[in-house]
Amino acid sequence: MEFQSYFPIWDKLTAAQRELILGSLTDREVKKGALIHNGDMDCTGLLLVRSGQLRAYILSEEGREITVYRLFDRDLCLFSASCVLRSAQFSITIEAEKDTRLWVIPAEIYRQVMEQSAPAANYTNEVMAARFSEVMWLVEQIMWKSLDKRVAAFLLEESAIEGTALLRLTHETIANHLGTHREVVTRMLRYFQGEGMVRLARGSVELLDERKLEALRDA
Amino acid sequence: MEFQSYFPIWDKLTAAQRELILGSLTDREVKKGALIHNGDMDCTGLLLVRSGQLRAYILSEEGREITVYRLFDRDLCLFSASCVLRSAQFSITIEAEKDTRLWVIPAEIYRQVMEQSAPAANYTNEVMAARFSEVMWLVEQIMWKSLDKRVAAFLLEESAIEGTALLRLTHETIANHLGTHREVVTRMLRYFQGEGMVRLARGSVELLDERKLEALRDA
Repeated sequence: MEFQSYFPIWDKLTAAQRELILGSLTDREVKKGALIHNGDMDCTGLLLVRSGQLRAYILSEEGREITVYRLFDRDLCLFSASCVLRSAQFSITIEAEKDTRLWVIPAEIYRQVMEQSAPAANYTNEVMAARFSEVMWLVEQIMWKSLDKRVAAFLLEESAIEGTALLRLTHETIANHLGTHREVVTRMLRYFQGEGMVRLARGSVELLDERKLEALRDA
Repeated sequence: MEFQSYFPIWDKLTAAQRELILGSLTDREVKKGALIHNGDMDCTGLLLVRSGQLRAYILSEEGREITVYRLFDRDLCLFSASCVLRSAQFSITIEAEKDTRLWVIPAEIYRQVMEQSAPAANYTNEVMAARFSEVMWLVEQIMWKSLDKRVAAFLLEESAIEGTALLRLTHETIANHLGTHREVVTRMLRYFQGEGMVRLARGSVELLDERKLEALRDA
């Protein structure tokens, strides 16, 4: 099992702690679009991404979404096990953005290990601090950045993740990432197209001028 | 020294860890309005509030502010020692909202204790998860709540903190808490006054109808 090489503090655990984790671990494959966790579910457990891509987002009462962070290979998702952290009082939804393989560590097992092991608790601290930084970045974006800059930043980020300038994305999907309405995104993308920054087609956005998009994002 | 009774995991530390902390601790008194930490400072250290009130906020490039969380008696401020958490990549500013007495634990000392002690690391986890929850609440507020609801929520929170309906607050202060402009707050408060919810005077806002404010906040 290659779990060991994905869990950075493996070497710092005792034999008993390792056994506890390996004995309770489950391996899961989820299809793109699958809902893995939502705030109302019981504690799903900690998720360690083997390969694929997850998206963590929050939902308004009216069903609007905004992406809080994303998880890639080797990332650990803590808040699908918020029952482990009594002070984590919020609901987050996690879905697979791509076909994803992951390990699930039961929350209760992780809590046991973390209670005994300073390295495990400190690793958890670092993971949480990294997510905290992402949420603070998000607060800055939604407070101080206009939507044109946020759309430009999102398109550039997507292009970097996918390694291509041709993004298979609907306007609805972009709106759900950014916490806005589809119509607003459509209007913005048409403006970008008019400026020669993108080319729009059904279900796709092609980046034509990354320099110009970067200049807009960083302005 | 009463530090022991303010630090919830004191009983779970070893004698050596206790000595390390007590030997490096400093006691500080800061006046209302004093800036205790800003993102550009070197690592200020962990702050444990003995009495008083602190405000943690972020600043835009243009100097606009928004309050992220507040700290009261017995609260621990982690992010004034973000050098301890390598993954905490953001700038936060901390000021005293009232005359405040606090202990400062040097960041390097806290890091040492946390590395050895699972209870200390787990306590840090819980503190961070609590702050995380506050930031997630903030994201939900600024994304999905209109400003009238946010102003109502802020006035009710202030009134609960101060234990009075007569709040000594300028419109500028309210705007800085909520990340908006003074003019916008003034307009909103005048509307509240017209509805009989508050009475405005120079440098103060008096709540006249808490029920109505609560109804607005929760609508």
